[in-house]
Amino acid sequence: MSEGIKVKFTKMHGIGNSYVFVNLFEESLLERRVSSLAQRVADVHMGIGSDGLILIGPSDRADFCMRIFNADGSEGKNCGNGLRCLAKYVYERKLTDKKRFTVETLGGIVSVDVHPDEGRTVFSVTVDMGAPHLRKQEVPMVGDPDSYTIDERVNIDGQPYWLTVVSMGNPHAVLFVPDVDAVPVSTIGPLIERAPLFPERINVEFVQVKNRKEIDCRVWERGSGVTQACGTGACAAVVAGVLNGHLDRHVPVTVHLMGGDLEIVWAADSRVYMKGPAHTIADGKFDV
Amino acid sequence: MSEGIKVKFTKMHGIGNSYVFVNLFEESLLERRVSSLAQRVADVHMGIGSDGLILIGPSDRADFCMRIFNADGSEGKNCGNGLRCLAKYVYERKLTDKKRFTVETLGGIVSVDVHPDEGRTVFSVTVDMGAPHLRKQEVPMVGDPDSYTIDERVNIDGQPYWLTVVSMGNPHAVLFVPDVDAVPVSTIGPLIERAPLFPERINVEFVQVKNRKEIDCRVWERGSGVTQACGTGACAAVVAGVLNGHLDRHVPVTVHLMGGDLEIVWAADSRVYMKGPAHTIADGKFDV
Repeated sequence: MSEGIKVKFTKMHGIGNSYVFVNLFEESLLERRVSSLAQRVADVHMGIGSDGLILIGPSDRADFCMRIFNADGSEGKNCGNGLRCLAKYVYERKLTDKKRFTVETLGGIVSVDVHPDEGRTVFSVTVDMGAPHLRKQEVPMVGDPDSYTIDERVNIDGQPYWLTVVSMGNPHAVLFVPDVDAVPVSTIGPLIERAPLFPERINVEFVQVKNRKEIDCRVWERGSGVTQACGTGACAAVVAGVLNGHLDRHVPVTVHLMGGDLEIVWAADSRVYMKGPAHTIADGKFDV
Repeated sequence: MSEGIKVKFTKMHGIGNSYVFVNLFEESLLERRVSSLAQRVADVHMGIGSDGLILIGPSDRADFCMRIFNADGSEGKNCGNGLRCLAKYVYERKLTDKKRFTVETLGGIVSVDVHPDEGRTVFSVTVDMGAPHLRKQEVPMVGDPDSYTIDERVNIDGQPYWLTVVSMGNPHAVLFVPDVDAVPVSTIGPLIERAPLFPERINVEFVQVKNRKEIDCRVWERGSGVTQACGTGACAAVVAGVLNGHLDRHVPVTVHLMGGDLEIVWAADSRVYMKGPAHTIADGKFDV
């Protein structure tokens, strides 16, 4: 790593999902270097340490463009926790004066609402996470392509599991359990993730319903393992809870994740809205 | 985490051992908050992410004082990789013009030499790591308090291991192996770490001698597990190599660790000197 060239960054997190942000309105990065840069900044030993790198830039189709690069250098489609942080960033730093604006992502254009206090500080943001997709072919999942998977008994490795399967752009298998803290997430998670039923593998959520407005959720993320929080996973958990009659449509549900809480509602317009916090950790310059 | 108060920091690493540095010549921290601050900044999810927090300050007994706080908030005695970074920091930022200076640590006063290029950039630093201690009572280790442990057969969990035990301020058990990449470090490491022989537990190094000037070393750190690098472990490995006749006294040995290379010499004055790189990752301000 040659020392000398410096790039301005901001590290932010949404309930423990942390990203290094670079603002392309004031910094420039070489496209061919972005993937390796993401790997480097995400490495806690030799870089800053994060779940990835997010670039904030202009868009022809929306108010802003967000590109997200995972810690392995691959480009990601969308990330609810990252979007909340981006929204806080652009509003607080006056890149926009709108409280509702649109962000172009690889997964499509997303609408966000910031909820600032009098001093323009944004502590929470609502993100339109889109409509859930339930058909097996949309997940994808082996079986009748047009059927849904709601509390369906499946056998994996000789054991029966009751799964509800929801795609929020990425696929989720949701299991309702009596005590989420008693679940061996890192044993069962990878079994379900890699079951032959799911040709592109799947994220797994273990959900304990506390009451009709509150659930506990533990996440096994496809390719990442146990994580602090997963925005799309929280959405899938609430959709699955409604489909199974544990929760109510149109009523906001507080989802307790290891990294913090999200408020999720599956609204009348069929879309899922996620409200949650965003925090700034540090601003600085890193050596590239 | 309230937003508003900001503290200047620099993140640096020495072969993958990374620390967040705060310069107390220009910043002030409340003593009672340092331990919790270390935990927060070291957390990659909600903080910056590092192996700990290092405070650089004035000393009555040396040129500088270094206080190191581990990721769990506990105060550490010394850290070779952290010291190299500190030396780079104070020389490059002109807190001293000396190329050899002293640093007060909880483990005693340590002498360091920076090796700057013409532009005052410091790419490598030599640290005086002190003399090794070999007697069992100095480790501490169960047995005759005045005897040494050099290639001694010990039984742990019913298996025989041949150990050489060296204290560099902290205790190390060194095992010579034919192929370091074939060793199940995270299986054998904790068995030796927690063997009843070592009442304060022990760090474990697996060493493959490549030739009389080069060794490969894999580290199991007491309380931390597999780490990228351990400065005192590399020193202990070379001392153990000399004691077993694999390496030579007074001849520098290159130690290949997962995070990079260190050059270690057990010198005529009985002290061990460690030369290695130091890197600046980022400068910035974090929200406290």
